[in-house]
Amino acid sequence: MAEDATAKLGDVQIDEDTETQRIDPWTVSASKAVNYDKLIAEFGSNKIDSALIERFERVTGRKSHVFLRRGLFFSHRELDQILTLHENKKPFYLYTGRGPSSGALHIGHLIPFLFTKWLQEAFDVPLIVQMTDDEKFLWRDISLDELEKITISNIKDILACGFDIEKTFIFSDLDIMAQSRAFNRTVLKVRKCITFNQVKGIFGFGESDNIGKISFPAIQATPSFSASFPQIFGNAKNVKCLIPCAIDQDPYFRMTRDVAPRLGFVKPALIHSQFLPALQGAQTKMSASDLNSSIYLSDTPNMIKKKINKYAYSGGRDTIEEHRKYGGDCSVDISYQFLKFFLEDDDELAKIEKEYSSGEMLSGELKKRLIQILQGIVKTHQEKRSQITDDIAREFMRPRKLKYTY
Amino acid sequence: MAEDATAKLGDVQIDEDTETQRIDPWTVSASKAVNYDKLIAEFGSNKIDSALIERFERVTGRKSHVFLRRGLFFSHRELDQILTLHENKKPFYLYTGRGPSSGALHIGHLIPFLFTKWLQEAFDVPLIVQMTDDEKFLWRDISLDELEKITISNIKDILACGFDIEKTFIFSDLDIMAQSRAFNRTVLKVRKCITFNQVKGIFGFGESDNIGKISFPAIQATPSFSASFPQIFGNAKNVKCLIPCAIDQDPYFRMTRDVAPRLGFVKPALIHSQFLPALQGAQTKMSASDLNSSIYLSDTPNMIKKKINKYAYSGGRDTIEEHRKYGGDCSVDISYQFLKFFLEDDDELAKIEKEYSSGEMLSGELKKRLIQILQGIVKTHQEKRSQITDDIAREFMRPRKLKYTY
Repeated sequence: MAEDATAKLGDVQIDEDTETQRIDPWTVSASKAVNYDKLIAEFGSNKIDSALIERFERVTGRKSHVFLRRGLFFSHRELDQILTLHENKKPFYLYTGRGPSSGALHIGHLIPFLFTKWLQEAFDVPLIVQMTDDEKFLWRDISLDELEKITISNIKDILACGFDIEKTFIFSDLDIMAQSRAFNRTVLKVRKCITFNQVKGIFGFGESDNIGKISFPAIQATPSFSASFPQIFGNAKNVKCLIPCAIDQDPYFRMTRDVAPRLGFVKPALIHSQFLPALQGAQTKMSASDLNSSIYLSDTPNMIKKKINKYAYSGGRDTIEEHRKYGGDCSVDISYQFLKFFLEDDDELAKIEKEYSSGEMLSGELKKRLIQILQGIVKTHQEKRSQITDDIAREFMRPRKLKYTY
Repeated sequence: MAEDATAKLGDVQIDEDTETQRIDPWTVSASKAVNYDKLIAEFGSNKIDSALIERFERVTGRKSHVFLRRGLFFSHRELDQILTLHENKKPFYLYTGRGPSSGALHIGHLIPFLFTKWLQEAFDVPLIVQMTDDEKFLWRDISLDELEKITISNIKDILACGFDIEKTFIFSDLDIMAQSRAFNRTVLKVRKCITFNQVKGIFGFGESDNIGKISFPAIQATPSFSASFPQIFGNAKNVKCLIPCAIDQDPYFRMTRDVAPRLGFVKPALIHSQFLPALQGAQTKMSASDLNSSIYLSDTPNMIKKKINKYAYSGGRDTIEEHRKYGGDCSVDISYQFLKFFLEDDDELAKIEKEYSSGEMLSGELKKRLIQILQGIVKTHQEKRSQITDDIAREFMRPRKLKYTY
C-alpha cells in the first residue's frame, strides 16, 4: 500500500485535553466540535488555502462559491491538477454520490450537490452521480423493493439542484450492475487489488462483518475511473475525475487512489467539505435518522421556525443583560454556522458576526434571519423538485454519451 | 450457522497411520488415495447406498448410469427429496458449473457434464450451467479479455456433451451480472447473510486474501435459487435444485444450504462425484495445468496412446513372471480406475478385473483396452464439438424460458 491509505480510523486522541473524534463513512462523532485541521493531518490530505482559491477564481473566471471562500470545502487532493487540466482545456469529470435514505433529505444533504452543480457550471464538464442503494441494503434493515422507491425519490431531490441534463448521468448501483459489463469489470479489478487486511485498516471492518460490506468499497471506487463508463466517455478510457464529497467519504477514495496505478488508471482528485452540524451542536453532523437534529427538505415554514427556535444550539448568553454585556459566541452558535453555509451575502454575514459577538444582536434575531433563509431555500427546493417528473429522472438515468466542451 | 457448514477444511488427520488429505475447491491432495468415506464423514453428507440407487432406477424407469452404479457419484444431500419430487411430478432443476480454464478440457472435466446430461434425460428437467469466469480472474493471473475467449471455447466443449437446447441455459458470471437484476439481487442477499468468519471457516480464506475472493462464494451460491432466474422460471420463485458436482465443490453448497432458509429459499440438493485421478495416481485429481497428468479432449489418438503407456500408474508387477504369479492390483491401477469411469459394459469390466487380478491379463493389455476406449471418447467428443457453432452456443446462452414437462 502507498502512503495515504494506511491511515487508520478509530478514536484518535488529538490533543492534550483528550479531545477525541471518530470520523468514518458511518460515524461522525467528536467530544468537542469536529477538528478539521486534525482530520487533514490524520487523512493526509491538503488544506485549501487562499492561494488555491485565488487560482480557482482566476482559472474559472468566477467568484468562488460561498462554500469555498468560507472554508466549508476546506481540504483537497490534487485539486491543483484539476485546475491545470481546465487551464489547458483538457477533459475531466465530476463524480459524487449518495446513499439513498428513506424519508426526505435534509438541508445538509444538499451541500455536496449544490457545490457540485456550481462546479459543473464553473468547469462545464460531465458529472456522474452514484446512488449506493446496494450499500444501504447491506448496512440497513430494508428491502430491495423499498430501496428502489427511495432511490428514485432521492434522485428527484438531487436533480432539483439543477444539473445540466446533457452533462449529467445519475445511476443506482443495482441498476448499473445489471446493465454494464464495463462497470462490473472495474468492480472485479478493484476487488482483486484489495485485501481484507486493507479494508479492515481503512474502514475498520471486522471478521463478523458480512462479505457484502467487506467487498462494497470497490463499488464506490469504480465510478472514479472513466473506463467504467464507455457509453459516456467512448474511447476516453482514462479521464481524470474530481470528487466533491464530505470528508467522511475520504477513506473510500484514499483506497481508490492507491489502487488506481495498479490498474493503469489515473488517480481521482478530491475536494472535501465539512459537515453541516446537527441543530444540537457541532459534535456530530446533521443526521437523517434524528428528526430533531435536522431541517428536512419537506419541512413546512412553520416546522422550520419551530425547530430552529427550539433546538438550534445557541452561543448566546443566559440573559439579555449578560448577552448585551458579553456578546454571543459565533464559534459554537449553530444558527451562525448555518448562515455561513446558506447566507450568500458576505457583507451581511460579517455584519451579523460583528453584531452578535458584540451583543448588539440577540439570539432570537439571529435565529429569525436563519429561519427566513432556510424557509426560502426549502420552498425553492420544493418548487424545483415538483417539476422533476419521472420522465426527466429517467432521462438523467439513461446511460448515454455526455456532452463535453473540449 | 446450522450443523453442516461449520465443518472446517484443512489437513485432516484421518487415521492411525497418519493418512492425511486436503480437499477443497482449490486443492485435492492426499497422502494415499483420496479416502471418500472419510470425506462423507468430514463434510456431513450421505453415502449413496444400493437402496437409493434402486429407488433411483425405479423412479426414473432407467438403469442407473455407470457413474452411479459403480459408486463414482457416491455422496448426496437430499437426493431422496428430488426422487420424491420426480415421483410426484413436481418441478425441480439441475445446476452445475465450471471455472473456465485455458487450453483444452481434459476427460476428467467431462464427468459432471456427462452425468448431468444423463440426469437431464432421466428427469426431463431444465439445467443451468454457470461458467465462473469471474472466479478465474480473481484466482489467476489472466485478463478478462482472454477469459471471454476461453469461456466460449469451454462452453462449446460442455455443449458437445449433448444437452437439450430447449431445457438448458449456460451463462458466464460476467455476462449475467451485467444482464440480470434478479441475479444481482440474490448475490447481494446472500452476501448480506455471510460473514468473513464464515468464509474463513468454510473456505480457509485469510486476511490477506482479496475482497473479490472473499465475496465470490455468493456468486456460486446464487444459481441454486430459482428466484435468480425470472426469465427462466417465470413466477416459480422457489423451485428446488439438484447440483451434480465433484465433492470438492461441496463447501460452496454447505454454505448455500445454510443461507437458504434465512432468505426464504428452498435448500439445493446435491449429488457428489469422486475425482478422476491423475495418470500418476489417486493422491490427486487430473489437473488441467499438469500436461502429463491429463488426457485432453484435444489429444490425438497417438498422444493418448503415448501418455497412457508412459504415465498411467500401473498396479502390475515388476516382471511378467511375477505378474503371472501374483496378479495385478486393481485398487491402485490407474488404467483400471479409468475403465471404471469410461467402460460401459459391466460384464467386460468384471472380466478385466478378474483377469488382471489373477495375472492372466498384463498391464500392456489393460492399457491397450483403455487406450481404445479413450481414443473413441475423445474422437466422438471432437466430432460433436466441431458441430457446436457460435450460433448454437449463443442460443444456449440466451436468457429465455426453459421447457418443463410438468
